[in-house]
Amino acid sequence: MKVVITGGTGFIGRRLADTILKKGGLTGPSVTEERVEELVLFDQLVPDGFDLGSDPRLAIVQGDISDKATIDRLIDRDDISVFHLASVVSGGGEKDFDLAMRVNLDGGRHIMEALRARSSVPRLVLASSIAVFGGAAMPDQVGDKTKQTPQTTYGITKAISELLINDYTRKGFLDGRSARLPTVIIRPGKPNAAASSFVSGLFREPLNGVDIALPVKESTLMPVLGYRAIVDGIIRLHELPSDALGDDRALSLPALTVTVTDMLDALDRVADGKPLGKITIEPDPFIEEIVTSWARDTYYDRAIALGLPKEDSIDEIISYYIDDYLNHA
Amino acid sequence: MKVVITGGTGFIGRRLADTILKKGGLTGPSVTEERVEELVLFDQLVPDGFDLGSDPRLAIVQGDISDKATIDRLIDRDDISVFHLASVVSGGGEKDFDLAMRVNLDGGRHIMEALRARSSVPRLVLASSIAVFGGAAMPDQVGDKTKQTPQTTYGITKAISELLINDYTRKGFLDGRSARLPTVIIRPGKPNAAASSFVSGLFREPLNGVDIALPVKESTLMPVLGYRAIVDGIIRLHELPSDALGDDRALSLPALTVTVTDMLDALDRVADGKPLGKITIEPDPFIEEIVTSWARDTYYDRAIALGLPKEDSIDEIISYYIDDYLNHA
Repeated sequence: MKVVITGGTGFIGRRLADTILKKGGLTGPSVTEERVEELVLFDQLVPDGFDLGSDPRLAIVQGDISDKATIDRLIDRDDISVFHLASVVSGGGEKDFDLAMRVNLDGGRHIMEALRARSSVPRLVLASSIAVFGGAAMPDQVGDKTKQTPQTTYGITKAISELLINDYTRKGFLDGRSARLPTVIIRPGKPNAAASSFVSGLFREPLNGVDIALPVKESTLMPVLGYRAIVDGIIRLHELPSDALGDDRALSLPALTVTVTDMLDALDRVADGKPLGKITIEPDPFIEEIVTSWARDTYYDRAIALGLPKEDSIDEIISYYIDDYLNHA
Repeated sequence: MKVVITGGTGFIGRRLADTILKKGGLTGPSVTEERVEELVLFDQLVPDGFDLGSDPRLAIVQGDISDKATIDRLIDRDDISVFHLASVVSGGGEKDFDLAMRVNLDGGRHIMEALRARSSVPRLVLASSIAVFGGAAMPDQVGDKTKQTPQTTYGITKAISELLINDYTRKGFLDGRSARLPTVIIRPGKPNAAASSFVSGLFREPLNGVDIALPVKESTLMPVLGYRAIVDGIIRLHELPSDALGDDRALSLPALTVTVTDMLDALDRVADGKPLGKITIEPDPFIEEIVTSWARDTYYDRAIALGLPKEDSIDEIISYYIDDYLNHA
């Protein structure tokens, strides 16, 4: 079978690809495990110095997701699965509404239409986000039963995509699932345009001896999850039998709900006296407005019941980052 | 100012037009009451024998809402308000997914983009629907805080439109409001493709001496509202100051929650021995599946607090229908 990961050259996309290639097979449209013959990382831009490696199954296709013909060419087999991670992110969407609509909404529709046009019922996993929650009436704890009144264009497009995937699935056009991601930590490399980018920076920069100014207050509470649990959760969601999800195909991934202080304390514990870059708090109104509009706490009993994983502590997540990106570097 | 009613030649559209013309003015983008100079009924088809009447302010524009250029030509003034009622309805959407997406989703986006392109912040009122609610996890009573997992393509497109109107309003592109309509009774004339069409037929056909077969069980519970309260509620919602609605611009209209038996009993009371067409129950699986997927009961405290009206009884609604359509006929 073929696997397509949109936004595939991104951090989660690349880790997801490596994990799938190591696993070797996925449940295909025939509802049996099939060998992954080709895995395409689809992306608009390939980052400088991106290392594709030597696995012959792995390829990059560069293109614009908002171009329907490009997506129709990409989704060219009946035995296919798509992991749809490509997205204009939260801060980016606030700065360019039209781009967010074109990429997140129209691009997502092109993916769904291309899958629908196949003569099979392929699986599709969307990376949605807890940014679908927001607004004055948002409860303290949000989850699968919470009304979605997002307060960013990013969140709006993700909420709409969850709805469309529900309907395309109900109609039998595809077999969709949406994973609502909390803030993913710890992303290696450079900051990105996501308003939550600082949450990875909070660990990454000090561990790399770099100073960082945090744009939000230390008391800011947020649900986070490590990239290993995110990737494993996305694959687990793909592999679940279709009837395990019922008529609402979207679920909130598990998360750890922590304050900035909790995360800084965990960093101190794991660093255990080793020198760290300096951390200061310098609130940025643009970032604070977005982040404080998000959910502070989540529930995720459905994800746990379906076997989706989470790390036990922030300390554990920091240790993985050190193993994966610092000890190997 | 100019007023545009999409789907304007329909039953609610026409009644809304007449009520606005009688009222004479609406709150324009300048946030003051402005005189209505022109009122355009925009629609794809004009029903046979449609009587526009002689009011010089009233005009019909025929066109396809899914054509962006048509909508850009329609929304050609800064001092404008749009009542967006045009929609492929529930039964129609189940039969033609692509048409529902093109008219309800793309058409709605064209309206929003055309309003955004004006140099004012025009008001937009969407006729949404309680069909935005549904699914296995739907609570017994639904309302403004209920998670939306619609189980029809119609409901999906309405839920998406509510989200888009929230975001276009948040961004300051327009000043949107969405009225979630329960089943509207009593529509005069012929049945339409809405799965709820029989609810008007239940009263209309017997009162006109015509027999009717009802496609659902007598115990079927549903929220309904009379057309007078619907039209007055839509205008009231348009007239509310913007900050009365906060960051969630959509609200459920008030409703009466009744069974088919309740409605038949009210019909008998109002008919008071006069002869009626015969009513039989002949369940239709296609209609039953849609109708039983809908909400059985609603709450609407926010609408009541904002002064949106409702009738006190089904008997009252039947009396209005007799006054408006039978005694005048």
